[in-house]
Amino acid sequence: MNPDPDYSAAYVALKTDLPGTAEGHGFAFTIGRGNDVQRAAIEALRPFVVGLPLEDTLADLGGFWRELVYDSQLRWLGPEKGVMHMAISAVVNAMWDLKAKLEGKPLWKLLADLTPEQIVDLVDFRYLTDALTPAEALEILRRAEPGKAERESLLVADGYPAYTTSPGWLGYDDAKLVRLCKEAMADGFQQIKLKVGSDLDEDLRRLRLARETCGPDIRIAVDANQRWDVDEAITWINALAPYDPWWIEEPTSPDDVLGHAAIARGVEPIRVATGEHVQNRVVFKQLLQAEAISFLQIDAARVAGVNENIAILLLAAKFGVPVCPHAGGVGLCELVQHLSMFDFLAVSGSLERRSIEYIDHLHEHFVDPVVVRDGRYVAPSSPGFGATIKPASLEKYAYPDGPVWSSAP
Amino acid sequence: MNPDPDYSAAYVALKTDLPGTAEGHGFAFTIGRGNDVQRAAIEALRPFVVGLPLEDTLADLGGFWRELVYDSQLRWLGPEKGVMHMAISAVVNAMWDLKAKLEGKPLWKLLADLTPEQIVDLVDFRYLTDALTPAEALEILRRAEPGKAERESLLVADGYPAYTTSPGWLGYDDAKLVRLCKEAMADGFQQIKLKVGSDLDEDLRRLRLARETCGPDIRIAVDANQRWDVDEAITWINALAPYDPWWIEEPTSPDDVLGHAAIARGVEPIRVATGEHVQNRVVFKQLLQAEAISFLQIDAARVAGVNENIAILLLAAKFGVPVCPHAGGVGLCELVQHLSMFDFLAVSGSLERRSIEYIDHLHEHFVDPVVVRDGRYVAPSSPGFGATIKPASLEKYAYPDGPVWSSAP
Repeated sequence: MNPDPDYSAAYVALKTDLPGTAEGHGFAFTIGRGNDVQRAAIEALRPFVVGLPLEDTLADLGGFWRELVYDSQLRWLGPEKGVMHMAISAVVNAMWDLKAKLEGKPLWKLLADLTPEQIVDLVDFRYLTDALTPAEALEILRRAEPGKAERESLLVADGYPAYTTSPGWLGYDDAKLVRLCKEAMADGFQQIKLKVGSDLDEDLRRLRLARETCGPDIRIAVDANQRWDVDEAITWINALAPYDPWWIEEPTSPDDVLGHAAIARGVEPIRVATGEHVQNRVVFKQLLQAEAISFLQIDAARVAGVNENIAILLLAAKFGVPVCPHAGGVGLCELVQHLSMFDFLAVSGSLERRSIEYIDHLHEHFVDPVVVRDGRYVAPSSPGFGATIKPASLEKYAYPDGPVWSSAP
Repeated sequence: MNPDPDYSAAYVALKTDLPGTAEGHGFAFTIGRGNDVQRAAIEALRPFVVGLPLEDTLADLGGFWRELVYDSQLRWLGPEKGVMHMAISAVVNAMWDLKAKLEGKPLWKLLADLTPEQIVDLVDFRYLTDALTPAEALEILRRAEPGKAERESLLVADGYPAYTTSPGWLGYDDAKLVRLCKEAMADGFQQIKLKVGSDLDEDLRRLRLARETCGPDIRIAVDANQRWDVDEAITWINALAPYDPWWIEEPTSPDDVLGHAAIARGVEPIRVATGEHVQNRVVFKQLLQAEAISFLQIDAARVAGVNENIAILLLAAKFGVPVCPHAGGVGLCELVQHLSMFDFLAVSGSLERRSIEYIDHLHEHFVDPVVVRDGRYVAPSSPGFGATIKPASLEKYAYPDGPVWSSAP
């Protein structure tokens, strides 16, 4: 479904009048055309941000989120979905980046150090209360308080599990697939992921090869990138069953809660995962209510930023569904690791069946690139949310005046 | 939820190199801030439109729709929702306006004159086949063929039922409410609509007054504009039951299929209606599958234009749910009447429980304004889709250089 991506981002820099150079950074990730539309959407938020009193704003980021999401005129363009919601994500995440930098903590640590009451204050429960009330959220967070310090030591010592999509892209020949599977295992990954859905015979061959190479203990997830209708999905996935896929990701439209639920029933015991294109917490709520997913895949930059992802982590914890984030793209690994680490410390309190996608691509453009070692994300120690792109990269790739563009044929 | 609208539109004009001045017009309706974002989204579609061969394009508007909706890079910004989808709506509708003008027919007539096979070709069934297959769609359309000519005569003679929202805005005093109810009845309307959800005691008083004024036979719909969570909706709506509301519209988030289904079960026999903010056919499919709505409210300019609305009309017919369009705003009445009239002639074949919203606002800016007489929309006879704004209005209100803006304080 995404055959020709041209990885791009609409980048936000929040500046302050404090002494020093602290800036808050965030971005909307796009795959090329439409990056200008994201830029225009972020521009539309300028009046909601420029001139705000810094201290008061950072002290109430729940309120800041509501100001952006519930502006009645902008809300008409969604509500809470697509271009406008991704723009809000960029701005909200930039504000969190700024706050974490000013407090001198990586975001995961800043969030984990908040009290349960402070965390609940960040979340907007509108449209959620039939599944999760503020009182239930508070209970989840209080239940995770004991052991938090021990989990933090564990996290800092051992990192957070990662899985790799590198062997799995369509179009690799068999030799390359086998080689990349072996490399993934040598690098310590316990899970890999293969793209499927273009040709069933091809999928069967690639999956057999991967399973033969990896043995029975490595988890092999498969990802259909929304290719199928419901009945087609069930037939296709069941055909893959002999190779024991760990999950089937995005079998159909990300808007189709009932479709995912039908697929989940139709492919048991294979598990359904989705989320990278799920527009907001209301759809995640329903995926959980309908028992449509066994893994919930948050994305750091599609829903409206940190606050909404906290709501989604709480929903997942309420329903006992593990969160395994989508990442890759531009900087999505850098961001989302903070949210999973916060989940481990303060929300679900668990690493069981949990891992963060890892794609080794474009990290060199970030000031604080992710570090993945022995198949695990190393907990970042630099202050902030990891969203800061190197000035040299910003300059080189700036559209349309950067040298990469101006020298393009 | 929409307290301070500033009615706006991002307007599209498609020009051709044919002799004459035929242009295709379409627009995305917004309520102010964010109109620039819509404009940027429409600009992003320019390369998909400019330079197309006219005849081939107009002969395959199903193919044209797919080119826009399935562009893989733009699709990342949705998929199929919000700003980008509304932009596609504007362009697709403009293409239909152009086609209808060139064929010298109002759009409703152009569509109704197509064969069932031609209509099915316009529809993309991806993600729909678990609810509606092309064969089922064909069967629905063939079933409506007999009697089409008689229904057309009836439509031209008597028009299509309308209902009015004019008495129902929040903030009117009691005398004005009563007066407007009386006027609506005198104007021949069989249904009115009242906004609710701000204050229950107020709602009860206003609804009682309206019911006393209108008597038992006028339908009184109520509209909550997404204000409630699920449980709150059920409690509130049941409190209104003594005044026999005809439907409750938008009780909660338009994304919440399961929420609407729970509300529908919780407020029977009061019927649930929604759709003006429903993002695409996949969500409408689920609302029907979940038996969440008794009335389906299409909007002419939120889903991706005529083609997607045909898919939604077919889905509604399959599930036996009447379509009662949302209208108002800028030009939404002008557009959507064509779709309901087409539905009557060629899809559902019925007027039962069907009516189109009517709001008497801003029609003076349109070259072919709607005509509502004796509580019914008069079938338009001018060629096109009714989307053309008068040149004088375009000039006066053009942002930011039109005199209305340049002379603003």
